[in-house]
Amino acid sequence: MGQKKIAGVDIGGTSIKVALLSFEGEIVRKTQVPTPVSAGEDGVMAKIVETVDHLLAEEGQSRNELAGIGMGVPGPVDEATGHVYQAVNLGWRDTPLKQKMEQLGGVPVWVDNDANTAALGEMWRGAGQGAKNMVAITLGTGVGGGVIVNGQIVHGVRGVGGEIGHVTIEPTGGPLCNCGRTGCLETYASATAIIREGTGAAAEGKSPRLALLLKQNGSLTAKDVFDAAREGDQVAVQVIDKAAFYLGLGLSHVANILNPGRIVIGGGVAAAGEFLFSRVREHFQRFSFCHAAESCEIVPATLGNDAGVIGAAWLVHQQVE
Amino acid sequence: MGQKKIAGVDIGGTSIKVALLSFEGEIVRKTQVPTPVSAGEDGVMAKIVETVDHLLAEEGQSRNELAGIGMGVPGPVDEATGHVYQAVNLGWRDTPLKQKMEQLGGVPVWVDNDANTAALGEMWRGAGQGAKNMVAITLGTGVGGGVIVNGQIVHGVRGVGGEIGHVTIEPTGGPLCNCGRTGCLETYASATAIIREGTGAAAEGKSPRLALLLKQNGSLTAKDVFDAAREGDQVAVQVIDKAAFYLGLGLSHVANILNPGRIVIGGGVAAAGEFLFSRVREHFQRFSFCHAAESCEIVPATLGNDAGVIGAAWLVHQQVE
Repeated sequence: MGQKKIAGVDIGGTSIKVALLSFEGEIVRKTQVPTPVSAGEDGVMAKIVETVDHLLAEEGQSRNELAGIGMGVPGPVDEATGHVYQAVNLGWRDTPLKQKMEQLGGVPVWVDNDANTAALGEMWRGAGQGAKNMVAITLGTGVGGGVIVNGQIVHGVRGVGGEIGHVTIEPTGGPLCNCGRTGCLETYASATAIIREGTGAAAEGKSPRLALLLKQNGSLTAKDVFDAAREGDQVAVQVIDKAAFYLGLGLSHVANILNPGRIVIGGGVAAAGEFLFSRVREHFQRFSFCHAAESCEIVPATLGNDAGVIGAAWLVHQQVE
Repeated sequence: MGQKKIAGVDIGGTSIKVALLSFEGEIVRKTQVPTPVSAGEDGVMAKIVETVDHLLAEEGQSRNELAGIGMGVPGPVDEATGHVYQAVNLGWRDTPLKQKMEQLGGVPVWVDNDANTAALGEMWRGAGQGAKNMVAITLGTGVGGGVIVNGQIVHGVRGVGGEIGHVTIEPTGGPLCNCGRTGCLETYASATAIIREGTGAAAEGKSPRLALLLKQNGSLTAKDVFDAAREGDQVAVQVIDKAAFYLGLGLSHVANILNPGRIVIGGGVAAAGEFLFSRVREHFQRFSFCHAAESCEIVPATLGNDAGVIGAAWLVHQQVE
């Protein structure tokens, strides 16, 4: 069995990442194809099988040599049955993904939410290696989370375990979140939040540097705000400090409740590196119960965009001995 | 094996509760003895074995008919080795409890933290029955917590999983906590907090009713404050509302991170019943991600002081088939 390959699939609203991996999780070959959303779930599944076959052919192999296909999906999943409750970006609702894919592909299929597969990827081959109690956070447009306890993803009773981005970090007031509530961590610590705060400061003329960039480019990026902060723009520093404060506070909740050994942070915003991490750690330490703080490292993710396909492959690896 | 009995032990700083249970967790016989703290750990262990023997004798049985002894300890524990890191109220530090008790008693012994055994008790035979993803909260002098995921206690990497009482619920300012930090949930939602707030209001003359009770009795109890609130004292209602607000917020953090199906609340303060629970649920719903809120019930614990010995017995039940 050790010689068999695993296919890892990370389905997004724009593109599908597909990789062929060794049974130990090394990527042998990978590719990316546009998601044919308008072709519906059957069209997307056919495209995935076609892409897997293509990668296998490039390796001179066939589906017989595949231990299975692991898949990460952007939405809540019943991982036991491989049923996708909903995937808004794909227009899916109540999709029996595992069942249909197994019929289509003729190999075993396992499915989980994409924040969870990213977490599993980091646990298996990335910054979480060796940690059986860890949390992975993705800081991008939103704030995603995957929680691992005793080496297993915490799905909870309705597949919404790990919704750390929707922890209410500001109970009174706070910006409106996509989820319909206010004060969610996501509205303070995502790229969207940093851009919103930076743009506000620029529009109010508090930061001439950000105001100039806003005028030149029509909009700001999170990187603009980080660059300004790094070069000493005090308003930009305040924007980053605020995001780090709320992120440190939110992560302290996780640490006080679960006492994980590692918190791995990835996503576009995490690219800011130590400038962000040192601030997050400082707030995290302050807000965490001493033993929980001492025993937990906060480290950058190391797998980048590959975390999803690697974690999807883990779903197969852990099932097939 | 089904006919064998289990001994469940709940060690506190003042008293030790010992019960003999059927293999299915029904209490056959129970007793309570003062904790001989000054006799040291060996003295306490000898007392426990003596008490177990006494209960067995009353049943006309011997240690041969015992499947094992389960123990709940007031402090962090390495549950794999049964090593007690520290138990302040007992004056213990680095106590190899499992090892010593097995030598002394000649039967298998399993050990966990007492907040965890209380949670396991409610899961097995109490308000959590049938729930494999649940959280138990004890509202007393402090706020204790036990977190269960997939039927297993979450210990975390240093045995401090479930420290929900030390979630920083008020990041700026807030009362000083015993843990040395400020703003912990425990300083807002415990009996101690309700007494502090009620006494403050009485001393400031805001509530004539509480002021009178304070003068008559020299101090207030949490029950005094609940009774006043129930009878319409608006200041007392505000005190209870504040505690419920913070508790609902803290529980929403747990729900957003873990998506449990049930949160069981016990301890002295929980005796206030629906007057408290309805308020906690209202805040909890408001602060929780919709799917997490919908799928989670908040219910009163049902085992009272027996939860600890029953959960301790579960430690044996789950190990011995």
